[in-house]
Amino acid sequence: MTDQDRYEIRFGGSGGQGIILAAIVMAEAAGIYEGKHVCQTQSYGPEARGGASKAEVVISNEVIDYPKALRPNLFLSMSQASCDAYGADLTPDGLAVVDETLVRHRPHARVAAIPFTRIAREKCGTEVVANMVALGAVGHLCRLVKPKSLEKALLARAPKGTEEVNLKALRAGVRAAKKIDISALPAPAGEED
Amino acid sequence: MTDQDRYEIRFGGSGGQGIILAAIVMAEAAGIYEGKHVCQTQSYGPEARGGASKAEVVISNEVIDYPKALRPNLFLSMSQASCDAYGADLTPDGLAVVDETLVRHRPHARVAAIPFTRIAREKCGTEVVANMVALGAVGHLCRLVKPKSLEKALLARAPKGTEEVNLKALRAGVRAAKKIDISALPAPAGEED
Repeated sequence: MTDQDRYEIRFGGSGGQGIILAAIVMAEAAGIYEGKHVCQTQSYGPEARGGASKAEVVISNEVIDYPKALRPNLFLSMSQASCDAYGADLTPDGLAVVDETLVRHRPHARVAAIPFTRIAREKCGTEVVANMVALGAVGHLCRLVKPKSLEKALLARAPKGTEEVNLKALRAGVRAAKKIDISALPAPAGEED
Repeated sequence: MTDQDRYEIRFGGSGGQGIILAAIVMAEAAGIYEGKHVCQTQSYGPEARGGASKAEVVISNEVIDYPKALRPNLFLSMSQASCDAYGADLTPDGLAVVDETLVRHRPHARVAAIPFTRIAREKCGTEVVANMVALGAVGHLCRLVKPKSLEKALLARAPKGTEEVNLKALRAGVRAAKKIDISALPAPAGEED
């Protein structure tokens, strides 16, 4: 857990990319299988912009007072629209994890770019599981949940008959994230872009 | 919308009953198809008791400050454990909507008892869609969303191939709820049980 004992993850994408399912699996991995306090939220309203959707997970060792993300520590973005809409308020040392192909204009933050959708297509034969490739990467990069916990949570939530392909996607995401050298990313919050 | 312009719904059940999906469909019906402000949350933690799980939906015409339910206006309970764990803090004029067969010991509140699981089995051939029978009833009883909005939200969320049976379940739930005469329920919050 980070120093402030509260870790916020925001998942952004467009409708149909499975953002909410990814957030629920992350929440249940941490809450059910690792015993942390977790709140998982989605908000809807007239202000929702241009097809961008988001879901949030707050993880803590303590009881969580406010369940929504205030300054995300990690922001996953699967689409340009979601990155534009929800990528501005990361913590100064936060990490943006983006789909390398779909998100070209990136936040002013440390960015890990991984081609989730392409990996899903090439390794799993379907782009539908790009959300689980991304979740595998997020799980590895946030360092809050064991891979086994993510896998158990995924198996409990994946629609019947899709367990194997989802698991394969999750593992491909972990592998892709392991190739990223976080320590080599630029220091917090420059203005380069 | 109620006088205080904030309506809170809590969904309670046991793992595998599809409580979270029901809450998400309710949230998207109100948020995406009716343009209300909606927050949908689930919390996990070491305090989770005896296999009971819950999900919450807060609906408002205004921006929502605190996204979790404080005093639910409506509490759906699909299992005795969830009713025992989460049924105590309804508003004084709140409504408990319970599975008539599975929840025998009920909150000190106005209660609408409907056999969701039995209806699912008898009308749809599978208990798996009891959550959608319940959602249909909740949608009708809360009077915040049009049946058409619920149906659209459901069709967007139901796993492929299960749209028809889920829709049938939703409609069976609406029909069952229409038979309940809310005005004939006892006045708010006596101590009878």
